[in-house]
Amino acid sequence: MPIPSQLLSECRQIVGERQVVTDSERLEPYGRDETPGLAPALPDAVVRPGSADEVSRVLRACSQHGVAVTPRGGGTGHSGGCVAVQGGVVLAFERMQRILEISADDLTADVEPGVVLQDLHAAVEERGLFYPPDPGSLDTCTLGGNVAENAGGPRALRYGVTRDYVLGLEIALPAGDRLRIGKRTVKGVSGYDLTSLIVGSEGTLAVITAVTLKLIPRPRSVATALVTFDSAATAAAAVSALFGRGILPRTLEYMDGRSIDAVRPTAPFRFPEQIDAALIVETDGDDDEATLAQLGRAVEILDRAGARSTLIAQDARQQRDLWTSRRGLTEATRKIRRIKIAEDIAVPRRRIPEALARVAALGERCGVLTAAYGHAGDGNLHVQILFDDEGQRPAVERLLHQVMAMAIELGGTLSGEHGIGIAKKKFMPLEHSAGALDLMRRLKRAFDPAGILNPGKIF
Amino acid sequence: MPIPSQLLSECRQIVGERQVVTDSERLEPYGRDETPGLAPALPDAVVRPGSADEVSRVLRACSQHGVAVTPRGGGTGHSGGCVAVQGGVVLAFERMQRILEISADDLTADVEPGVVLQDLHAAVEERGLFYPPDPGSLDTCTLGGNVAENAGGPRALRYGVTRDYVLGLEIALPAGDRLRIGKRTVKGVSGYDLTSLIVGSEGTLAVITAVTLKLIPRPRSVATALVTFDSAATAAAAVSALFGRGILPRTLEYMDGRSIDAVRPTAPFRFPEQIDAALIVETDGDDDEATLAQLGRAVEILDRAGARSTLIAQDARQQRDLWTSRRGLTEATRKIRRIKIAEDIAVPRRRIPEALARVAALGERCGVLTAAYGHAGDGNLHVQILFDDEGQRPAVERLLHQVMAMAIELGGTLSGEHGIGIAKKKFMPLEHSAGALDLMRRLKRAFDPAGILNPGKIF
Repeated sequence: MPIPSQLLSECRQIVGERQVVTDSERLEPYGRDETPGLAPALPDAVVRPGSADEVSRVLRACSQHGVAVTPRGGGTGHSGGCVAVQGGVVLAFERMQRILEISADDLTADVEPGVVLQDLHAAVEERGLFYPPDPGSLDTCTLGGNVAENAGGPRALRYGVTRDYVLGLEIALPAGDRLRIGKRTVKGVSGYDLTSLIVGSEGTLAVITAVTLKLIPRPRSVATALVTFDSAATAAAAVSALFGRGILPRTLEYMDGRSIDAVRPTAPFRFPEQIDAALIVETDGDDDEATLAQLGRAVEILDRAGARSTLIAQDARQQRDLWTSRRGLTEATRKIRRIKIAEDIAVPRRRIPEALARVAALGERCGVLTAAYGHAGDGNLHVQILFDDEGQRPAVERLLHQVMAMAIELGGTLSGEHGIGIAKKKFMPLEHSAGALDLMRRLKRAFDPAGILNPGKIF
Repeated sequence: MPIPSQLLSECRQIVGERQVVTDSERLEPYGRDETPGLAPALPDAVVRPGSADEVSRVLRACSQHGVAVTPRGGGTGHSGGCVAVQGGVVLAFERMQRILEISADDLTADVEPGVVLQDLHAAVEERGLFYPPDPGSLDTCTLGGNVAENAGGPRALRYGVTRDYVLGLEIALPAGDRLRIGKRTVKGVSGYDLTSLIVGSEGTLAVITAVTLKLIPRPRSVATALVTFDSAATAAAAVSALFGRGILPRTLEYMDGRSIDAVRPTAPFRFPEQIDAALIVETDGDDDEATLAQLGRAVEILDRAGARSTLIAQDARQQRDLWTSRRGLTEATRKIRRIKIAEDIAVPRRRIPEALARVAALGERCGVLTAAYGHAGDGNLHVQILFDDEGQRPAVERLLHQVMAMAIELGGTLSGEHGIGIAKKKFMPLEHSAGALDLMRRLKRAFDPAGILNPGKIF
């Protein structure tokens, strides 16, 4: 069913002629996100509001016409959350990119949803402040998308995820009503925590029009090491040894040999030859010596647990190069085989060795190549399933199901940070009971009785 | 309307004869919490389940009879959340006090809701682990109550509140259905965050039957100082100076002279004479020297901002005595006048000086004594309103309203950690729009369509 032309002209009146896109060539970039292998789905129109008021009026119009609305940030998601699988209107936030306020006294930032994460990082760090969440797509993803998906990143190990930094939100409900929810204070227990519920709800409950974020003082020093191992098993056991000794670095990233080999040709960091598994360990603090000493303690424990070699980054450039290379894994592992499926399971920390071993064994049994990297400290593993031939698809689907079931069996979850979207919704009953799913559906109806907001996602 | 005798005999069958209390003398302790001045309200019966299954069956029975159920932990709340204002059944958790598991590898603890916080602290610290939330009532409050109220405490400044440590929950819905929600992993974005919604919902959405908590490694060293000032204004400005320099201690507690004078006679810590205002500053870390150095830096900044004197706690006993004295303020300030009303506003940090000054001025204008202490680092102030004569009640009610309106005007909230309960529900429209309140009510109905769970609270 095409979108009513009456709705299009209402939208044009609200946001301006040029901010409503309907020709298919210009719609094309809005038809996908970064989920590998996801079929594109073109919206009927893209509407680009310039203010919260315009968002609200567009929602009201779509609601009156019963047309689906899918909010979209940077389009960097890995589960299809911003793809309009049922057509309708995509609400794109590229015109709402203002950092409204940064308060060094209150340790807060107020931003519009279209602000690119990297721009916020730069703006707050310039003032000696820090906003920890750092998903791999930080140079293009937006705060609105980060909030909708509850984005994480390497630094989540020590500092937590997006939800831990969202104090309050301005939202528009599907019928257009605008609400301020949450608070500007660090603490607050007044009524239900609507804010935490919106964070991670993948754009299915409300549209975010402004975000109040908590900041912290920027750690003055950071120390980084690359520690290599002879096998995934040794690396995984070393992670457990570290936690057993009560050490919590700010990041503890795992990469297997296959992933490193994939990124090596284009990586600015010069990895040693023949790595079978490696960890990036990073500590921070307010004092260079103490930060380096903490890194030293961590490396010593990893050494005793069987590390092969340790490289300590010698300056800020080496640190940056190492992280740029780490972030390059997502793209680089796409090139190992023609088709890649990227998963995002998380398991309790002590189960990491078992999870890695079982993923590898399951892959071998199905005759499909796997690679793994991710946030070992959080138990959050990005399992990559790599194959060339569509004929392998049934085996791959079986493998996927087995990996998900394994994560749940180990006490884990389907998704550490990518969300459910459309990519993982068929697996939801593995993790959640019928009763829990029913409760989620009831919440969805409480926010969106007509079901027009980002339909077809999560459930 | 008395409770049906049929329901009582069903409850006796479920939990055992001795675990259903109906005689009024034994009901009396269940009729109140620690909210100063709150009128007691006796339930018709107290039912003490011994397991999640019993909780669920009692709920089902009450639901079938349409009888209200109010869950109750340690009864240490400050807003009336566990008081059965509409009668019915109080579900008391004194038989569900087991620590089910502590995992040093996963950094998690599983507990029943009746576990006393102090017992959990002891059990995890023995293993080198740490559970930060530390409300003043830690020797008697329970984890179930902490979760329901989203308890805070001094260490929230650095470590966050209860919500930040609840990974997953076992709950029973009002009609008796049992659900596992949330996760056991640090990260997880699978479906809506039902867990964060239940935390702080004051027992109005579901009954908590087990809690999975996140732990962190225990900091190896702690350094504590008492810093005194000539006036509240100087102390408040010094707090701002500290944040301006990017220093975030683990606690930053404010106490005014009147509060200290009240606790002085019974305090184990020997306060210097004639303090007008004071801060307790505490730092922690893994290294004694670095921790003390950090405290030194903080004290130096406070000094330059006009501190009068600094006492650094010389050993663990002095630290303990200082904190016991700090926790004694709640009780001690009750004795300043015959009647005390304790408030719990929070404001953005930079507004603390203004909030303190305005509270004092408002009190003077109404001819009512005020005192203030609290978590200055969080902007969370426990404003005490002290008077002798019921004749002053109308002036006190005006003052209360003005204090709440002032907190909201400064961008703050009605309650930093005590919750709304019945004590603050009349102020809710000051903070939340009609639309936000309506949304909360819709969520309440999604969980509890019959409205039997802890009725009369929050809204």
